[in-house]
Amino acid sequence: MTDLSTHPTQVASAWLADLNAACERNDVDAAVALFGDESYWRDLVAFTWNICTQEGPQAIRAMLQARLADVKPSNFQVEGQATEAGGVIDAWFTFETALARGRGQLRLKDGKAWTLLTTMTELKGFEEKKGVHRIKGAEHGVHPGRKTWAELREEEARTLGFTEQPYVVIVGGGQGGIALGARLRRLGVPAIIIEKNERPGDSWRKRYKSLCLHDPVWYDHLPYLPFPDDWPVFAPKDKIGDWLEMYTKIMELNYWGSTTAKKARWDEAKGEWEVVVERGGKEITLRPKELVFALGVSGYPNVPKIEGAETFLGDQHHSSRHPGPEAYKGKKCVVLGSNNSAHDICAALWEHGADVTMIQRSSTHIAPSDSLMELALGGLYSEQAVKNGVTTDMADLIFASIPYKIMAPMQVPVYDEMKKRDADLYARLEKAGFMLDFGVDGSGLFMKYLRRGSGYYIDVGASELVANGSIKLKSGVDIARINPRSVTLSDGTELPADLIVYATGYGSMNQWLADLISPAVADKVGKVWGLGSDTPKDPGPWEGELRNMWKPTQVPHLWFHGGNLHQSRHYSQFLALQLKARQAGIPTPVYQLAPVHHTR
Amino acid sequence: MTDLSTHPTQVASAWLADLNAACERNDVDAAVALFGDESYWRDLVAFTWNICTQEGPQAIRAMLQARLADVKPSNFQVEGQATEAGGVIDAWFTFETALARGRGQLRLKDGKAWTLLTTMTELKGFEEKKGVHRIKGAEHGVHPGRKTWAELREEEARTLGFTEQPYVVIVGGGQGGIALGARLRRLGVPAIIIEKNERPGDSWRKRYKSLCLHDPVWYDHLPYLPFPDDWPVFAPKDKIGDWLEMYTKIMELNYWGSTTAKKARWDEAKGEWEVVVERGGKEITLRPKELVFALGVSGYPNVPKIEGAETFLGDQHHSSRHPGPEAYKGKKCVVLGSNNSAHDICAALWEHGADVTMIQRSSTHIAPSDSLMELALGGLYSEQAVKNGVTTDMADLIFASIPYKIMAPMQVPVYDEMKKRDADLYARLEKAGFMLDFGVDGSGLFMKYLRRGSGYYIDVGASELVANGSIKLKSGVDIARINPRSVTLSDGTELPADLIVYATGYGSMNQWLADLISPAVADKVGKVWGLGSDTPKDPGPWEGELRNMWKPTQVPHLWFHGGNLHQSRHYSQFLALQLKARQAGIPTPVYQLAPVHHTR
Repeated sequence: MTDLSTHPTQVASAWLADLNAACERNDVDAAVALFGDESYWRDLVAFTWNICTQEGPQAIRAMLQARLADVKPSNFQVEGQATEAGGVIDAWFTFETALARGRGQLRLKDGKAWTLLTTMTELKGFEEKKGVHRIKGAEHGVHPGRKTWAELREEEARTLGFTEQPYVVIVGGGQGGIALGARLRRLGVPAIIIEKNERPGDSWRKRYKSLCLHDPVWYDHLPYLPFPDDWPVFAPKDKIGDWLEMYTKIMELNYWGSTTAKKARWDEAKGEWEVVVERGGKEITLRPKELVFALGVSGYPNVPKIEGAETFLGDQHHSSRHPGPEAYKGKKCVVLGSNNSAHDICAALWEHGADVTMIQRSSTHIAPSDSLMELALGGLYSEQAVKNGVTTDMADLIFASIPYKIMAPMQVPVYDEMKKRDADLYARLEKAGFMLDFGVDGSGLFMKYLRRGSGYYIDVGASELVANGSIKLKSGVDIARINPRSVTLSDGTELPADLIVYATGYGSMNQWLADLISPAVADKVGKVWGLGSDTPKDPGPWEGELRNMWKPTQVPHLWFHGGNLHQSRHYSQFLALQLKARQAGIPTPVYQLAPVHHTR
Repeated sequence: MTDLSTHPTQVASAWLADLNAACERNDVDAAVALFGDESYWRDLVAFTWNICTQEGPQAIRAMLQARLADVKPSNFQVEGQATEAGGVIDAWFTFETALARGRGQLRLKDGKAWTLLTTMTELKGFEEKKGVHRIKGAEHGVHPGRKTWAELREEEARTLGFTEQPYVVIVGGGQGGIALGARLRRLGVPAIIIEKNERPGDSWRKRYKSLCLHDPVWYDHLPYLPFPDDWPVFAPKDKIGDWLEMYTKIMELNYWGSTTAKKARWDEAKGEWEVVVERGGKEITLRPKELVFALGVSGYPNVPKIEGAETFLGDQHHSSRHPGPEAYKGKKCVVLGSNNSAHDICAALWEHGADVTMIQRSSTHIAPSDSLMELALGGLYSEQAVKNGVTTDMADLIFASIPYKIMAPMQVPVYDEMKKRDADLYARLEKAGFMLDFGVDGSGLFMKYLRRGSGYYIDVGASELVANGSIKLKSGVDIARINPRSVTLSDGTELPADLIVYATGYGSMNQWLADLISPAVADKVGKVWGLGSDTPKDPGPWEGELRNMWKPTQVPHLWFHGGNLHQSRHYSQFLALQLKARQAGIPTPVYQLAPVHHTR
């Protein structure tokens, strides 16, 4: 039994030494005995070749029984100084396995583990060639017939996908595909990214004019190349677009723009995918071993079927197709929905002199950006955090170290504080008839994002327009029918309309598979995203991790990557390592492959 | 009298406190008394609005008498911990002046200053908007008619140089112009960079195929955006080219490619330059207040007039025009010269199966790259230095803290060590007839670079080819005459030749002015580069700093910027601050404007 009066670092070291000893003896009982009755072990690839959280000693025991002998973990070492607060000791550590090196985070209560995070940082023998390991570049001495960097790049562009096949094809060249592509490049895994838009960054450029990132710059870095320190807190979409384009070039990615995936099938005989793409009007068949879908966080736009829609004489489109406000000065605009896109689009239309009405069908969580910054993100992603030595990489690990099971209750105080802090705005919104919520359990924005990827607006100004009536509001209603020049609401009111925007969200990512591969495969993979929290739009049972994201799915060699910039940055590391291991022929027995409970 | 037994930091603090007190009392005598009999004060803009070094107490006294009351320096504070080695205490410090904040470096011997460096880091009220000062980006709240980032960029590109005039025009869009452009952008100084090549980076791309940087990656960073940590030690030219192109875009520079400067004149009446440029076939007149030439380190190619040259039936061109080796397989190639370009070109030709002869007219300094790395640069620019906390910015300041007067003797031991370390190569080179030197005073490569910008080869392999005879060598001779299919050397031997490459260097940068402005202005500015060391190709008198670089010249509003990547990075900071001060209308009395001793 460890004595809390000793320095936290000693306590953590002692605990890690005990774990180390138990692991070396392959003594599962001794290892499990180090965990508290309420304990969580979250593993990112290092122990399980999966992304999963063991909740409680029993689950931890089962995992160790299955994996310990194979993983052979060793050399657990505290990194830096452990800290203690409220009876919880917090420590960073490094460790090794038979195959890899890793980094972890430990929280101790009464000398026993409350939370443990283990992550794989690199595969032994397949380290990135960086820092002291960087290549020399100029091969000193002279080598008749040697090829230059430019010649090799040109040769790769000419042959990869034609005479040479990529090991990985990434469908989707947004931030997700690009970040993963950069990781794979560093690991020497040949990959092609296919993107329907012409240039990297177009998926941002093509969105509505006034869009800026809703997350702060410290949260949005890509791997390996941080934004310059004069970047605005909220980067404009075109600036991000240019950055992604530059990044793709600098990271030497094989990026096929103006390319669409037509069809994909797993060729059982050859043990590879057959992916038919159309590139600049020409059909090309790619034969990768692994196929990754990096299409954001969602599937197809949800466009509600509304009676009379076909009779409408104005413009109507989903928010994802909205061209921006320019054409709608003085026009009557109806925006169906009340989440981020709906608010941004309403504000932009109002700015341009349109008459805008927002139709709010159900309650929405409003999180004022400044408050979110200070209360929710500031500790990890801010200039202050940087000053405190919390680098983006460290912030990502701290974030990852909170098991999803206990994340919701830990978030509640943040939003209780937000309710106080922004009470005036909330009161005025409710006075205007706006239906507010903070999530069923009061856990607020980030949990909504993880559970359903929707249901909120990060307020950068539009809420004021709703509160003061500049943006007209109809709440608790839906559009019952669409007439040639108006919409009739479920309460019978009729609104004249020249424009209808359906800010009605998206389906699940496995929708893409139904068309591209087959409905059967889409259903075998099942719903993507969500925790199984049994809250609105996130049906149970509890999964403990995001469904199908960055980890093996029920369909071998088929993967999903995506999320916001933070997730694309951090989890691309673990997906890239899983893919590298397979390319290198390293055995990757997957522990606890998640079953599918929901199809589409 | 300070007691050396006390901690170096206390000693340095005490010294700085004394300087601070003397400055506050405006007591020049007391300040000068703090300097040893052998002492140097190098100032980068902070005290002198110039780049100059005061050598000895008398010069320091004169400078303080002229500047102290005006500069009002204060708040000298030791930064971090001072160190002591061999009786010399080494300390970093920060300070302020009436107008600016600065950073400095101090070396004390027996409690008195031996070397003092003062540099300006930012002008009060004109700080870069970075870190905590970064802009928000998304203007929260809504602003009818606001312009987006993309619209503002587009507007600037459309108007700057036409309806709006830039404050600065930078002639030359290589690494120098680009680095300076980035600094000016951050300081809000409107600038246009004009470059004859189409794209940023072309000046590298268009050089011979096998070229890699001869300086290591840690030495080559641009301001604000370091290379990713997997960049090779020696970056291939096309990779640098792509980086410069990306950097220019990301830094949002107004870069006019395919643009040449035709004529420039100072309009006395309007107090501005009139710069006529041709952009894509169209003449445009720019009217900046300040004109910067950033054309590298040198002027026009030196092409020797050799009797019979016009009769030659093969190819002949200056090294700067050499297309690369591809066309010369099996051909007889004569390369006149024995410095970097000559060696690189000879090696590339030999690699491609050409029959190559190098004509060495005078002795050359050979510095094997690995030795240079470890002996000369490693302490400041290497992975080890990074590990030791020597960031690139700090390394630049350490480098800058050595007054040129004592730099040469400090360099000698490095090259004495190199002679031992690489004795075998040197012996074999001499056996092959190669004429070696290490600089007249044995101070080696960097001093040669500063004094004359030539006279050496950083060996990345070609020396072995010379030593083993793969590259044939004729040394101590010149080309006496050129015949249709051969050259006749000064010793009478005749060499058959299909190709003659003149790797014969360049003139001084003020040559550009003669054609662009006028010969009179070129001569008024005088020779650019060189220290006045009274060594070959660097005639005296002693200047103490590089002639005309990054500081005011005898022609008002006319500046030179350039050098290698390290100099372009570091000195662009000081040139940008000088330009910003003028744009902001801050008085900038220049102390000790350098007289001109050599015209062209």
